[in-house]
Amino acid sequence: MGEFELIRRYFASALCARQGDGVVRGIGDDCALLSVPAGEQLAISTDTLVAGVHFPEACDAFLLGQRALAVSASDLAAMGATPLAFTLAITLPDASDAWLADFARGLQAMAQDCALALVGGDTTRGPLSLTLTVFGRVPAGQALLRSGAQVGDLLCVGGELGDAAGALPLVLGQREAEDDSGAALLARYWSPQPQLALGQALRGRATAALDISDGLLADCGHIASASQVALQIELERLPLSAPLRAFAGEQQARVCALSGGDDYRLAFTLPPALFDELQADWPEVRAIGRVLAGSGVQLLDANGQPIESPRGGYQHF
Amino acid sequence: MGEFELIRRYFASALCARQGDGVVRGIGDDCALLSVPAGEQLAISTDTLVAGVHFPEACDAFLLGQRALAVSASDLAAMGATPLAFTLAITLPDASDAWLADFARGLQAMAQDCALALVGGDTTRGPLSLTLTVFGRVPAGQALLRSGAQVGDLLCVGGELGDAAGALPLVLGQREAEDDSGAALLARYWSPQPQLALGQALRGRATAALDISDGLLADCGHIASASQVALQIELERLPLSAPLRAFAGEQQARVCALSGGDDYRLAFTLPPALFDELQADWPEVRAIGRVLAGSGVQLLDANGQPIESPRGGYQHF
Repeated sequence: MGEFELIRRYFASALCARQGDGVVRGIGDDCALLSVPAGEQLAISTDTLVAGVHFPEACDAFLLGQRALAVSASDLAAMGATPLAFTLAITLPDASDAWLADFARGLQAMAQDCALALVGGDTTRGPLSLTLTVFGRVPAGQALLRSGAQVGDLLCVGGELGDAAGALPLVLGQREAEDDSGAALLARYWSPQPQLALGQALRGRATAALDISDGLLADCGHIASASQVALQIELERLPLSAPLRAFAGEQQARVCALSGGDDYRLAFTLPPALFDELQADWPEVRAIGRVLAGSGVQLLDANGQPIESPRGGYQHF
Repeated sequence: MGEFELIRRYFASALCARQGDGVVRGIGDDCALLSVPAGEQLAISTDTLVAGVHFPEACDAFLLGQRALAVSASDLAAMGATPLAFTLAITLPDASDAWLADFARGLQAMAQDCALALVGGDTTRGPLSLTLTVFGRVPAGQALLRSGAQVGDLLCVGGELGDAAGALPLVLGQREAEDDSGAALLARYWSPQPQLALGQALRGRATAALDISDGLLADCGHIASASQVALQIELERLPLSAPLRAFAGEQQARVCALSGGDDYRLAFTLPPALFDELQADWPEVRAIGRVLAGSGVQLLDANGQPIESPRGGYQHF
């Protein structure tokens, strides 16, 4: 089957998801064409997922399609961008009809959730991997960067942390989901919900933002470094879900929240005066610490004492 | 080595190639940010190259870097777009310093030639493959599409065809380069020159265009199909280089020109009245046939007689 035929057969519904709104020309020519309204800028992010490295080769194709697009769309959320379109470069060892149909359904489901239209791509033969590039638009000068955190700001996150990391033993087949807790964590792993609306709501409010993909501690390190400030996190304030606590236990749940990045929640810094208003609209938002002068990330225990070297790959930045 | 460090160490020069001109923010945040001038649209194309499929695993890393970007930039040429930026998603089995340094030098050389700035990407571990996404800008409504060919237009190509396909036995190690001819063909294979300036010159002149990547016959089939016309090619008019004739012989040279796509020349349709003016500025441009009513691609021999089924994978469309 030729590339065009393959794309048209399996990805037609994603292609048609949102033609018109900024998409001047989708698949079928040498390039796709997007229009960006005057006064707006284009936000772009690229992510590759490799079988056997980022996902198990034998995983469910529907879930893989869903998750692959969510992971990329989360970068648009982190910039406060409005989703526009995406391209898919897919390398396949063979073109199994059933696999492709399932994968395309998963991709399409997330494309609709995120209002992203498939505008181009490439299909090649080789070891299974996916490279997605997502496009969004953001008013000029209003993109959320990592570099604007101010001393005195609150450090906030977009909701409960660690669920997806907690699911890893299930994803990797090292443990069985004994009860509903496991199923809830697996759902969070395979179907992360990019916080696109929250990201857009943070424009003009948050002073710095990113999506947590490397783990809370590592990603807070990125904000601290880009903003030339220190971030202080209070361990007791980490929002942990009931399923994660039940499945992993309190201690391991905290490690998942600190070092797992697979939830794709936003982390951001916010002037304290804006917190109540934001939380009224986004009750899942939590303040977990604050911005101080200095450098690096500091973790405080229940007594407000610094913790030097927690488990789970934490480096002091 | 972390992703940032790897990118900064090896790709720093490409990063700095052209900051400012449309690039609001490059590597280092969740997304890159591009600005597109009012009245212009963004052209986007994605291509994947897989080791062992699109290039020999053991090929020269400098040449691979050069060629990977040229292949993608050629899609911008085909739309008449002005180059702006690109992202690189690279999957590597291991991070060999020497290989990465050579690859980055090759990428950088072509990035400078094409005036493309590296603005983002992803580095992952896995079987060697590259996915490049290129961005250009084009005045709204002036992009060169495949769909505008008019009955009576000339069918033109941007220069000599088949050199890179002629080099394939050398690339694959099936034959040695006995003389200068082989070396000339290899240079054409590894360092295709995307016809960016020609593409921009064709805006408002050519009625349809693409870059020849699947082979002249197959790609003319794409124009014929998108434009709902027939294309007629005169075999005698195919521009063949002296090195290709010397290396491959006259008969095989024609097969390379008809079925090889690795030169990344432009093919386009042009009202006859515009040909002389264009060729005055672009002497390498050749008219090789014309646009007729009907469908598909027809090949004529030296006596003007249709050739039904030439060698080299030609399908009748």
